[in-house]
Amino acid sequence: MGIKMEQLRTLLGEVYDLQAINLILGWDQQVNMPPGGAEARSHHLATVNRISHQKFISDEMGAALQAAKGELETAGAEPDSNDMRIVIRMQEVYEKLRKVPSEWVAEFARMTSLAQRNWEDAREASDFAMFQPHLEQVIKFRRQYADFFAPYDHVYDPLLDYFEPGMKTAQVKAVFDELRPQQVALVRRIADSGVQIDDSILHKRYDEQKQWDFGVEVIKAFGFDFERGRQDKSVHPFTTHFSQNDVRITTRINPNFLNPALFGTMHEAGHAMYEQGIGEGIARTPVGQGASLGIHESQSRMWENLIGRGYPFWKAYYSRLQSFFPEILSDTSLDDFYRAINKVEPTLIRVEADEATYNLHIMLRVELELALIEGTLAVGDLPEAWNRKMEEYLGIRPSNDAEGVLQDVHWASGYLGYFSTYLLGNLMASMLWEKMEQDIPNMDALVEQAQFGDLLAWLRENIHQHGAKYKPAELIRRVTGKSLTAEPYVRYLTNKFSDIYSL
Amino acid sequence: MGIKMEQLRTLLGEVYDLQAINLILGWDQQVNMPPGGAEARSHHLATVNRISHQKFISDEMGAALQAAKGELETAGAEPDSNDMRIVIRMQEVYEKLRKVPSEWVAEFARMTSLAQRNWEDAREASDFAMFQPHLEQVIKFRRQYADFFAPYDHVYDPLLDYFEPGMKTAQVKAVFDELRPQQVALVRRIADSGVQIDDSILHKRYDEQKQWDFGVEVIKAFGFDFERGRQDKSVHPFTTHFSQNDVRITTRINPNFLNPALFGTMHEAGHAMYEQGIGEGIARTPVGQGASLGIHESQSRMWENLIGRGYPFWKAYYSRLQSFFPEILSDTSLDDFYRAINKVEPTLIRVEADEATYNLHIMLRVELELALIEGTLAVGDLPEAWNRKMEEYLGIRPSNDAEGVLQDVHWASGYLGYFSTYLLGNLMASMLWEKMEQDIPNMDALVEQAQFGDLLAWLRENIHQHGAKYKPAELIRRVTGKSLTAEPYVRYLTNKFSDIYSL
Repeated sequence: MGIKMEQLRTLLGEVYDLQAINLILGWDQQVNMPPGGAEARSHHLATVNRISHQKFISDEMGAALQAAKGELETAGAEPDSNDMRIVIRMQEVYEKLRKVPSEWVAEFARMTSLAQRNWEDAREASDFAMFQPHLEQVIKFRRQYADFFAPYDHVYDPLLDYFEPGMKTAQVKAVFDELRPQQVALVRRIADSGVQIDDSILHKRYDEQKQWDFGVEVIKAFGFDFERGRQDKSVHPFTTHFSQNDVRITTRINPNFLNPALFGTMHEAGHAMYEQGIGEGIARTPVGQGASLGIHESQSRMWENLIGRGYPFWKAYYSRLQSFFPEILSDTSLDDFYRAINKVEPTLIRVEADEATYNLHIMLRVELELALIEGTLAVGDLPEAWNRKMEEYLGIRPSNDAEGVLQDVHWASGYLGYFSTYLLGNLMASMLWEKMEQDIPNMDALVEQAQFGDLLAWLRENIHQHGAKYKPAELIRRVTGKSLTAEPYVRYLTNKFSDIYSL
Repeated sequence: MGIKMEQLRTLLGEVYDLQAINLILGWDQQVNMPPGGAEARSHHLATVNRISHQKFISDEMGAALQAAKGELETAGAEPDSNDMRIVIRMQEVYEKLRKVPSEWVAEFARMTSLAQRNWEDAREASDFAMFQPHLEQVIKFRRQYADFFAPYDHVYDPLLDYFEPGMKTAQVKAVFDELRPQQVALVRRIADSGVQIDDSILHKRYDEQKQWDFGVEVIKAFGFDFERGRQDKSVHPFTTHFSQNDVRITTRINPNFLNPALFGTMHEAGHAMYEQGIGEGIARTPVGQGASLGIHESQSRMWENLIGRGYPFWKAYYSRLQSFFPEILSDTSLDDFYRAINKVEPTLIRVEADEATYNLHIMLRVELELALIEGTLAVGDLPEAWNRKMEEYLGIRPSNDAEGVLQDVHWASGYLGYFSTYLLGNLMASMLWEKMEQDIPNMDALVEQAQFGDLLAWLRENIHQHGAKYKPAELIRRVTGKSLTAEPYVRYLTNKFSDIYSL
């Protein structure tokens, strides 16, 4: 490695460490921190975010990026080499971050740390009013953030770009508009099919430790490496990483409902295996992590849904699950169980939603956060707007804030612009899946034998190892040859539910 | 607060945050981190220590200290006011830290992080040879550290000062020399007493969860605040703090021996209550933590020994302990139990040692680390030197490294100079205790009723709230009116064991 590149790597390594520390502090806050720790933690986070940002946007970093680029060009480096991609991507991020004051970054970190802590209490008390002032702060900060990037096509663009580099509001709206009628039509056809699925088997008393153990067994088989990661419990399940060799997931277990831990664990493992698959050559640089939240969700939703809610998976695992819960499941057939976990039914909680209605939860949130950031919806009116939209989209109405507007941690964490990426991830997952089916013709048979090695190897090769070397749209195009499209996703959903609901 | 003091507080707050983050990373490493995380963690620690040190020794900090001092003097601030003490103590630390290069601090943090991880494996394998190269590194680094402070009276002085500000090797040696013959004589008198104590009751099968629960009950009664702290398990028990409102302890439970968790939990709670008692006015400054390790040990050893191994405590708690383990303890009287937990007997493991032999474990370690740092003992010869000294002092010889030279984490963490503070803490604890007995005449009666509020309030008032406002010697003198002396300690030990062993 050239001397200039080495100097750049040292600077980037320091920034990466600080970013990792930020994530460690966040993990600890959600998994371990006693209540009294909240205020000090908000200071810790402010300090580390301030310094991390200052280091990233320093003139020294700018010069090091320039110098390394010159050195690489002189040496005739490949445009797709790790070093060249690191320089190019980091220059883009550098230019972006320089528009944001470090003091804003620090204050935002401090404020959202407290907001997130408050959200836990508000959710527990099911009281949006408690949380309202914090959310108002979040909206105010996020508007300021957008304004650092003015002029923009849409005030939501910079927020979206924060999570999904290169994505535009107009593009998200177009995808949503393309998808919405098809999604609604599918849900209607299912409702009109007359087929009734009984999923009461999922709502029995499932021992918590056994739920945990089964989930661990499954994700170990998937390929989650516990030598380089761990699982804990938290109020809201999440994945975080402190390097490619220390990737942590959380789950939450409902003793009266099998789905949350079962599919939540698979989902988070999907995120985690992505981070565990980052290539050595980009490790300890800010490129050495997932390319975007959309790509991330393509991984988590793939393991959760395309694999975990699929028939081949349960051909492999249902008898194993029965052996964990014989007193509950021994009289239920594989086919009945498969239908139960795929029952389409409007529900209040996003993370428990079936695949057919899931995107409606996302559209609701994205439309609401667009209205909040545009200023056409006041935070105080949010719960009522939420409930109205739930009735409109799903025909059901939350009876309290905990099962309504307070159910997700994202806004408390300051994540406006995040929700779109779940939907984008669903679309990307199906695009990748169709390509995988071409490359691994016996994929179903492998899954039926609980053989996930080839699948994971494909993902490692095509997605994971690259980290953030490419922007999401470029990465998807490199792998599938296509731009983002909803077609494979609609095909997948229609096939799956046509079968289950005899459409 | 004046504007200059406020500016100083901002800078100190940032340094405090970074120091807290360093401790969070260390806690996570020992409590949660998967094996794969070790290398990245060593980078995280290096980065945060480098930046923390750079910030502390910056010219900006020097100027801010000067300016704040000037402002306080102009305003006629009290010499003992928080602000004035913060300035004075921080100027001392500033001058000290400026002698050390930030790059050394970073490398030392990285190296000891890996050494500590390695020590866990080496201890598990009971193989000193695995650990030897890491310890050689530690010694090398610690010699370098001492040399930053040359000229010194003794190469060990700067190391000692690191943990016990103001303490000199000569003073430690003098105290040790004063104490050694008395300690040895006491142990001999006990051995010669002919009194045989049966402590087999402590070596039964004690349910781990119940051990945990009893310990928690006790330290809650002591005053450990679980809203502002938590307890976990780790290979080596320790206490750490991320603010006065987030103080964490760990314990380790031996299912076949009651003492380690029982007294270890009390010990760590003693450390933790000290940190939880830091005054608001010095919080989020580097003064807002324990004054030294010696003072810290005076707290932990007081709760563990002067209270926790005392007769009044067990008058209050023995029947409660019996109710946790009726099948084991119902036939053992309070007096027999009290004698069992105070049985004097040479043992291999320091943290399990009785009060009469404990200091011999310390002397052994301090003498060995003096020889290591002076260069008169090679690291490769350490296990044999350890074992020989164990025979000489205690008449027993470890059969392997795990129960010998590898038993303590301290050297792996880079802590040379630390062990003395246990002994100093024992002496300070007895000095403080005699003063407490004057101020709280009914202390025994309170303990007998499990009433610890007045004791804790006294410690809060006289010790805890002050944090590191005063150097340890000054703090002890303010409270007791005396310089460090072994007399109260020898009095305490002699009284206690004269009674138990009918001397």
